[in-house]
Amino acid sequence: MSLDHAATKPHEQLAAALADDLSAVNAMIRARMASEHAPRIPQVTAHLVEAGGKRLRPMLTLAAARMCGYDGPYHIHLAATVEFIHTATLLHDDVVDESSQRRGRPTANLLWDNTSSVLVGDYLFARSFQLMVETGSLRVLDILANASATIAEGEVLQLTAAADLATTEDIYIKVVRGKTAALFSAAMEVGGEIAGQDAAIKQALFDYGDALGISFQIVDDLLDYGGTKAIGKNVGDDFRERKLTLPVIRAVAAADGDERAFWERTIQKGRQQDGDLDHAITLLQKHGTLESTRQDALAWAAKAKAALGVIPDHALKTMLVDLADYVVARVT
Amino acid sequence: MSLDHAATKPHEQLAAALADDLSAVNAMIRARMASEHAPRIPQVTAHLVEAGGKRLRPMLTLAAARMCGYDGPYHIHLAATVEFIHTATLLHDDVVDESSQRRGRPTANLLWDNTSSVLVGDYLFARSFQLMVETGSLRVLDILANASATIAEGEVLQLTAAADLATTEDIYIKVVRGKTAALFSAAMEVGGEIAGQDAAIKQALFDYGDALGISFQIVDDLLDYGGTKAIGKNVGDDFRERKLTLPVIRAVAAADGDERAFWERTIQKGRQQDGDLDHAITLLQKHGTLESTRQDALAWAAKAKAALGVIPDHALKTMLVDLADYVVARVT
Repeated sequence: MSLDHAATKPHEQLAAALADDLSAVNAMIRARMASEHAPRIPQVTAHLVEAGGKRLRPMLTLAAARMCGYDGPYHIHLAATVEFIHTATLLHDDVVDESSQRRGRPTANLLWDNTSSVLVGDYLFARSFQLMVETGSLRVLDILANASATIAEGEVLQLTAAADLATTEDIYIKVVRGKTAALFSAAMEVGGEIAGQDAAIKQALFDYGDALGISFQIVDDLLDYGGTKAIGKNVGDDFRERKLTLPVIRAVAAADGDERAFWERTIQKGRQQDGDLDHAITLLQKHGTLESTRQDALAWAAKAKAALGVIPDHALKTMLVDLADYVVARVT
Repeated sequence: MSLDHAATKPHEQLAAALADDLSAVNAMIRARMASEHAPRIPQVTAHLVEAGGKRLRPMLTLAAARMCGYDGPYHIHLAATVEFIHTATLLHDDVVDESSQRRGRPTANLLWDNTSSVLVGDYLFARSFQLMVETGSLRVLDILANASATIAEGEVLQLTAAADLATTEDIYIKVVRGKTAALFSAAMEVGGEIAGQDAAIKQALFDYGDALGISFQIVDDLLDYGGTKAIGKNVGDDFRERKLTLPVIRAVAAADGDERAFWERTIQKGRQQDGDLDHAITLLQKHGTLESTRQDALAWAAKAKAALGVIPDHALKTMLVDLADYVVARVT
């Protein structure tokens, strides 16, 4: 992230403003992780849930509810729900990612982790629906069941689109909506729902979360190629996993014959060798796709901020606006 | 199954009595499997959902609802829900079972299946909650969210109990409740719930499903050691996977020093060799644990039938009573 950014970051401001709520969420998460019958469950989840994540998604729910004047108890349940769903998808992603990365030579330990990851993810998913039931709101269940289906669809779509050079920008956005934005938008919308807001406000909250999530994921995908300044470390995971992200989709579309052959070899056939990642980045730079992708991230962040226009002024609203800027600050 | 059994089996009678409802369930399953965005999803589910399974669990929901005089549309949604949850757990079990069975040498194809299994299972699980939301009943969501949590807990408990000679009968019953009976009991209970029955009737329906499911699983575990007549084929999976089922738990409890050493080597340490399965079956026969396990299965089937005592006479009730007998007919 850029060094000239404000010392207190928007998500830290949100965490400070929502400190009491966040404590209650953490307490509820800890209580509901427990399993009377299967002590392994909290062991598996603890390192994920307790590891000091930023709690970004539950904060969205808390902020949306509070910004809309909610003063009941159920935003806590919903924030914990959102974190459980997020954790469940992380656990299941582990299985998916480990499978592709360590293809052909898993260890016994890896396999043990796979089985635990699948089953404990299922447990958290079931727990999250129990929490929703406690709110007594069918509409909340509807929103988050829909989001859960969209998440799974996005992940499957990503799986089938991998290594496929015919992947379009439209498919990419569907994948991003599924894997990232669906939970952001649902987290915001349920905050408005529980606060009894009208359709226009709930739509605005949804749109903010949707655009924020898309912006967030585009930035992530951009940084995986070193960002526009190519200063990043730990780059190239997507290239090695043959994921078609926006910079590559655009470079493939603009490729000449030799370049097309390069992408076919490295992404479609997966025959990669030393120097390929560097060459890929050179092609992205040649066609300006890192820069155009950066512009897209900025446009989605702007869209997120614009969506909040219909929301009355509120300290939390200001922080959410700043958060959208912060998400793209890593590439500005 | 025994040859002297009636020509028309109870689940076939149920299927005939519920034929129109089952057609509607199948149509709904097909419609809701579809994914606009991810065509792979119906490909993965089709072979499981369409493969001509007996639809035992959805039939329980339909039978419970109809037996209680329900004439609305939502028993169809709930039956499809139950089948989706069942299919999701089958998909996730595949990952777990393949991991342990083919430890150390998975194929690329296996890994691809794993990832699809995890994600498509998640999709079906989310879809099942969408179907429940459509019924408008929070109580239904509560019942099936609880059942889903119990299923996941049971699977995790089974994982941690495997190869552990300290596993008790109490733990075994918890595992069986989770992996099998929880969905049977919930399938029955939601049928009564949607039909607006009182607490006593719903409890009776739950108890029937619970006892039927436990009986069903005990019979399965018994047949994995060839049943009491040792005529079974394809036996020994549980032994090879070092699962502690009732016949073994009881034989371990009754073991002398040499026998204890045998169980420690084969189950605890997993060092199995030719002839071990035969020797294990000999020990089960020596201590009469196949027979005592069979008695348990019969007792649970009797309990299932007794639970229906409070339900007014009905053709479907008779079939459910017969179904409990049929489940244990394989070992009588």
